[in-house]
Amino acid sequence: MTNHFPYEDIVKAIKSVLPENLPVVPLHEPNFNGNEWAYVKECLDSGWVSSVGAYVDRFEDLLIEYTGVKHAVAVVNGTAALHVCLLLAGVKPGDEVLVPTLTFVATANAVVYCGATPHFVDSAISTLGVDPTKLDEYLQETVTVNHDGCYNKVTGRPIRALVPMHTFGHPVDLDGIVEVCNKYRLLLVEDAAESLGSFYKEKHTGHHGLLSALSFNGNKVVTSGGGGAILTNNEDLGRLAKHLTTTARVAHPWELRHDLVAYNYRMPNINAALGCAQLEQLPSFITQKRILAKRYQKALVSVSGATFFTEPKSARSNYWLNTLLLDQNFVGQRDSLLEILGSNGVQARPAWTPMHRLPMFQDCPRMDLSTSENLVSRIINIPSSAVLGGDVLDA
Amino acid sequence: MTNHFPYEDIVKAIKSVLPENLPVVPLHEPNFNGNEWAYVKECLDSGWVSSVGAYVDRFEDLLIEYTGVKHAVAVVNGTAALHVCLLLAGVKPGDEVLVPTLTFVATANAVVYCGATPHFVDSAISTLGVDPTKLDEYLQETVTVNHDGCYNKVTGRPIRALVPMHTFGHPVDLDGIVEVCNKYRLLLVEDAAESLGSFYKEKHTGHHGLLSALSFNGNKVVTSGGGGAILTNNEDLGRLAKHLTTTARVAHPWELRHDLVAYNYRMPNINAALGCAQLEQLPSFITQKRILAKRYQKALVSVSGATFFTEPKSARSNYWLNTLLLDQNFVGQRDSLLEILGSNGVQARPAWTPMHRLPMFQDCPRMDLSTSENLVSRIINIPSSAVLGGDVLDA
Repeated sequence: MTNHFPYEDIVKAIKSVLPENLPVVPLHEPNFNGNEWAYVKECLDSGWVSSVGAYVDRFEDLLIEYTGVKHAVAVVNGTAALHVCLLLAGVKPGDEVLVPTLTFVATANAVVYCGATPHFVDSAISTLGVDPTKLDEYLQETVTVNHDGCYNKVTGRPIRALVPMHTFGHPVDLDGIVEVCNKYRLLLVEDAAESLGSFYKEKHTGHHGLLSALSFNGNKVVTSGGGGAILTNNEDLGRLAKHLTTTARVAHPWELRHDLVAYNYRMPNINAALGCAQLEQLPSFITQKRILAKRYQKALVSVSGATFFTEPKSARSNYWLNTLLLDQNFVGQRDSLLEILGSNGVQARPAWTPMHRLPMFQDCPRMDLSTSENLVSRIINIPSSAVLGGDVLDA
Repeated sequence: MTNHFPYEDIVKAIKSVLPENLPVVPLHEPNFNGNEWAYVKECLDSGWVSSVGAYVDRFEDLLIEYTGVKHAVAVVNGTAALHVCLLLAGVKPGDEVLVPTLTFVATANAVVYCGATPHFVDSAISTLGVDPTKLDEYLQETVTVNHDGCYNKVTGRPIRALVPMHTFGHPVDLDGIVEVCNKYRLLLVEDAAESLGSFYKEKHTGHHGLLSALSFNGNKVVTSGGGGAILTNNEDLGRLAKHLTTTARVAHPWELRHDLVAYNYRMPNINAALGCAQLEQLPSFITQKRILAKRYQKALVSVSGATFFTEPKSARSNYWLNTLLLDQNFVGQRDSLLEILGSNGVQARPAWTPMHRLPMFQDCPRMDLSTSENLVSRIINIPSSAVLGGDVLDA
């Protein structure tokens, strides 16, 4: 089979979409052609670079405006956002939390920060994210549901929440997920770290969860250097998210008093200044990224051996990381193709090692994860910077 | 007694040191007259604003050079630094950790993040930090020490570590502290969040602890917006600190694999760019701050009712926050003086509410804390920005 895998055609098709003048095309790099320098300079000139400042508030307002979610709290990164989302969802030591095995390690780590245990669930081929139908079948056999919640029959532990992640920006089947959460009395927390600018049935991702987490790391659609945000439509949770991420300081003209064990998670103002300039350009970045995805799709449509992954039904994706899916009969060629792409100046990478195969999570409870295993052997991410979509007018 | 408290003299003495042209003199504000703009702009132009970048490495090198401690790991803030220091010191759920009640809330919170319980200790009048003599007397009655460590006889829990904090930049009695740690088999972690630029017997603070934590919050001697660092002279701990703060990612050209539950605590490059420019000016900031302290001392020497707090014996302090200590017989005047200072355009504040009086820590174990209680009723911090010390040549 190895002989018939069309490496050259695939590399050629990908390269046809990319600029010719770059020695290496990075997987994802930010674009600072807006007001980044003006805002950061203004921030330095003001002296307010730290955890208090006008840009942090403005950054939150811009997020609320763009996503339509009612409350946003800016924090140091997506991991911190997830941690606080889970705490506010009531995740406690001894609980279990359902998370996809196909995700970045932060999703599972945040569960452990709460003293809880990740319980790994499988993905659907159609979304790359949690498969609600398969999960429903699994839970039917594995849990009991009573008036105070959902319990794992095997471990005896409460299962508190489900944290689907919108893989590479592609929204999961949120209607199906909500149905499962209702049926099994699970709280829904969306890991929307990769899906800023992605919509499910006209609503921005992050709307369906009781709480949701965003990320603005350097490799994301927009960046604040390091950054994240907690989104929620619940006013009390919004207020508590702010309190928990700002050391639970009680307002007073001078007294320094705190009323909870809390976190120093507030996004610094200098990072928010950068983030504000980036958010202003988000619509045009998304347009560029969708144009790039269309070009990849077109270039790869006639190539055999691999398929370009397109957005799920009912979703409008940000195409954060463009994804190639090797054909089933070419499983095993992934690493060779990664090497060939690399030697051709195309930065590419596989999906994450699935969580249940990492040493610290290998004994955690899990359902059958064969689809995720299969996906990991077939996924290759290819260059996805917005700038590769060319110049566009603001959407 | 109230009638005789010389409010006016004190306000007049303080104002004599401060510039006349400011409507309000802030408690502490940063100074960005070095390479801040140049470095931050270069950072934006490079595109490397996030968790990988040349400025983060340079920031660590500058810290190593200045403090003389062998390894430095830059993180998002001082709280994150403390958390990782305690984890690396082996603090485990169910342990107790000795911390001063007179500290910022992060010291105690970091203990709780590890699943351990803070055990509050008293301060010495001479340093404002942990009193080793009084602590020794207390431990003699309270603990048993055997081959595997120190145990609280009352709670039965292991006491793993002691975390002294160098209050307002003034070094604690480190010789005495080290003696107590050796006698009771306690690991020493220095909370040096306030003491960058402070030396104890010619050695920079942070040398005596197995690990130490620094902070570069906006109100500190130098700032990176948000930032902190872990210091250690132990090579293995230095390596592990880097690993634990960078999601424990295992080096590989493309594979995304992690081998521990770890943290997304790396300082972003844009914050490090700002921090590098600030560290270059640290020696002159310290010179300015020490000049300001001398001026306060001189202005207040002939005023009755309060004393200007000067650096402890054997120490050379950064005078991070200048401190007024009300005389014993004027305890009770603190809040009135704070109000009068405020209405005179002098931003001032009291010490933190002591930890054992915060609702979440009120049931934690503690020794007699009467000196800390007394200090809290007498401490007032007054404006301390380096710029108030005037222009100086680099030290």
